[in-house]
Amino acid sequence: MADRVAIIGAGPCGLSQLHAFEQARLKGADIPEIVCFEKQSGWGGLWNFTWRSGLNEYGEPVHGSMYRYLWSNGPKECLEFADYTFDEHFGQPIPSFPPREVLYDYITGRAKKENLERYIRFSTPVRYVEYIESTDTFLVRTQDLIANTEQTEEFDYVIVSTGHFSVPNAPFFPGIDRFPGRVLHSHDFREAREFTGKDVLVVGSSYSAEDIALQSYKYGARSVTISYRTAPMGFDWPEGIEEVPLLTHIEDRVAHFKDGSSKAVDAIVLCVGYQHHFPFLADNLRLKTNNRLYPGSLYKGIFWEPNPKLMYLGMQDQFYTFSMFDVQAWYARDVGLGRITLPNTKAVTQDIALWQQREEALKDAFEQIDYQKDYIVELANIVDYAPCDWEMTVALFKEWEHDKEESILGYRDKAFTSPCTGTKAPVHHTPWAEAMDDSMETFLAKQVLLN
Amino acid sequence: MADRVAIIGAGPCGLSQLHAFEQARLKGADIPEIVCFEKQSGWGGLWNFTWRSGLNEYGEPVHGSMYRYLWSNGPKECLEFADYTFDEHFGQPIPSFPPREVLYDYITGRAKKENLERYIRFSTPVRYVEYIESTDTFLVRTQDLIANTEQTEEFDYVIVSTGHFSVPNAPFFPGIDRFPGRVLHSHDFREAREFTGKDVLVVGSSYSAEDIALQSYKYGARSVTISYRTAPMGFDWPEGIEEVPLLTHIEDRVAHFKDGSSKAVDAIVLCVGYQHHFPFLADNLRLKTNNRLYPGSLYKGIFWEPNPKLMYLGMQDQFYTFSMFDVQAWYARDVGLGRITLPNTKAVTQDIALWQQREEALKDAFEQIDYQKDYIVELANIVDYAPCDWEMTVALFKEWEHDKEESILGYRDKAFTSPCTGTKAPVHHTPWAEAMDDSMETFLAKQVLLN
Repeated sequence: MADRVAIIGAGPCGLSQLHAFEQARLKGADIPEIVCFEKQSGWGGLWNFTWRSGLNEYGEPVHGSMYRYLWSNGPKECLEFADYTFDEHFGQPIPSFPPREVLYDYITGRAKKENLERYIRFSTPVRYVEYIESTDTFLVRTQDLIANTEQTEEFDYVIVSTGHFSVPNAPFFPGIDRFPGRVLHSHDFREAREFTGKDVLVVGSSYSAEDIALQSYKYGARSVTISYRTAPMGFDWPEGIEEVPLLTHIEDRVAHFKDGSSKAVDAIVLCVGYQHHFPFLADNLRLKTNNRLYPGSLYKGIFWEPNPKLMYLGMQDQFYTFSMFDVQAWYARDVGLGRITLPNTKAVTQDIALWQQREEALKDAFEQIDYQKDYIVELANIVDYAPCDWEMTVALFKEWEHDKEESILGYRDKAFTSPCTGTKAPVHHTPWAEAMDDSMETFLAKQVLLN
Repeated sequence: MADRVAIIGAGPCGLSQLHAFEQARLKGADIPEIVCFEKQSGWGGLWNFTWRSGLNEYGEPVHGSMYRYLWSNGPKECLEFADYTFDEHFGQPIPSFPPREVLYDYITGRAKKENLERYIRFSTPVRYVEYIESTDTFLVRTQDLIANTEQTEEFDYVIVSTGHFSVPNAPFFPGIDRFPGRVLHSHDFREAREFTGKDVLVVGSSYSAEDIALQSYKYGARSVTISYRTAPMGFDWPEGIEEVPLLTHIEDRVAHFKDGSSKAVDAIVLCVGYQHHFPFLADNLRLKTNNRLYPGSLYKGIFWEPNPKLMYLGMQDQFYTFSMFDVQAWYARDVGLGRITLPNTKAVTQDIALWQQREEALKDAFEQIDYQKDYIVELANIVDYAPCDWEMTVALFKEWEHDKEESILGYRDKAFTSPCTGTKAPVHHTPWAEAMDDSMETFLAKQVLLN
């Protein structure tokens, strides 16, 4: 068994990992000494909203990409912790698409219940991790931002749970350097009301583009133009939102697109994705991947092929989130505790190759959902994570995809049934398109009265 | 003599340092092997304008704090290189307050003339510097952003020239996290036209606050409210700019101030200064200081007291800039070449203490200017930097301070005489308040015709 385990990051993945170890401990297992390093002053990772953008008060890159008025864009039933349900946390059934604060409260609620903060050193970014062959350990150098001092410590295992929606991709478009309005990446988007009355250009065609376009529309942007590279999202957008081909260049305020059309805009939001970025890891430990369902060099999506004492959680592109992180954390824990033995190098390489081959053959989102479910089930079958009806989550995801096709403004008003408890969610008291207040108080308060 | 010298940063300070070594080499001296690491893809440091803010295309913090339409806020005659004058670079006399592009062209022009780029590894941030006692050398670990690989090399001397106007201070004000408009630090300010027609709140009372207030006004902000902590700047502001006491809190759009007054605003620009931030230096090498004319622990403002083979350039609060960096670079070089021997530890400590005592007794900007001039002259008298009439620069600075008192909108229309060449600058063809185009082409083109 490992003596010391470092967990980097106390967001959803890091908290799942702490919870997994804590559950083993509560059931009587000997667990290693665990230190979780968190660069923010609080836990919750991306879900820990900050008004800051760019660099924070310590001069560190702001982790958060979260904006005000963000509501879950998938049903909460598909991300529910099987061992800590929404019903348990809130003491009442709640609607399927909660705003950020509600999900933050849920994730951190489980951590609070177990006092997991005792494992965490807050305001302590990891500066460097290197592997020392002679001792078969990792040296982890960290910075205490408050004391402004550095420390170096030795660990047997390192678990990287720093996320991959924090460090933007931001390509150059000719003329963007002379654009006379605000240019930002979705990472820095905080407040849709900044764009009230404005003509907004959103560049991108994935979840960020979709949601920031909708937010801007909802909070009164005059128009939203979405520019796609390969294909439009093709939703039935409300009047005021339209999709156009790729941005080719900008002249003063005017954005020009590949089909020859153009549009004068006041702001440009680059929703062009994020990088897997680990400047704190030595070269030979650093995952280098694009955003995909099965990144290479990670056995079972977790163990760093050249050195499996280094683990990564949640590095996949994601349909499943919190519950997948739980299953991964359980698996990682059981390897750390010596309960699971990893196969030899050849088997590892073959297994990764097989998963990647299957991934590359996937034809659409429906197949991708099946694929990620299969991945989770493979891990879940080996560990003792609480039972969950994974087949049912697949059905919910597919229903959700259909709902979005049917109404991009209305899909968040649907109600789903929990695969953990069988509880049917209530319909929210206010349709999402009209719900301007995203506070937990408002979301929960009227619920009881109106359902 | 040192065998290998690392210079961190190819901004004004780093380029001064490269130039100092190159000048020695051209005069026949043996110089060490020099490697300058620059994290940006080009040189010029802060003066290398970028449209980006927050993180750059490699996920690295954006260095630049420069915005469009920035014009020098001090006379160019007070920052002129004594060995490469404006007359030499431009082939004609130019006005005293040039826009950014012109100063960038000037600084990098000298570097181009000497092909200094051959010493520089661009797109290569320094990740870590540590001192190895046994070898009396520094290990410098860097990241090649393009190849995405790291390297570690050994150096005898390290010269830190990374600047200290890149990493923002950003305090929290109650309610700022719920403000329904844009909140930014001056570090992220790029484009005044974003604020045309808006009510802008500027928090701060130093150069950034002064200039961003003026820029916003010039490009059509509806109103600019400047909030000061201790005292107003007190200039004769044009109608539309006013100074108010410290921001206490924000309710929705309304900013409240210490005197009980309030103002509804659309955007908040925090111009509250920068941090000396060196996350890439080991604790025992890291300068920790506020922004002041004589930071502690630096002998002659350059040599790291506990280990003088580590040097810092330009870490002072600054009246003088480029020419001071030159003199510092000359001095640092001469220590590196063994031409100057540093005194013993006791003498070093005493010297720093004396300078700091004198600094703490300074009563106003006029005394501060004298003080920084005295500091420069002390170094300049020892090295062979080109002659400059330093007394004259003091007189120019004092005249400039008076000009600002007289007209905050008009002081940039004044013309000064070069302390290096005796050339009297022409008056610019367009008053600054009306010069909306800040390009070098426009600045220089009409010049000949109109003077």
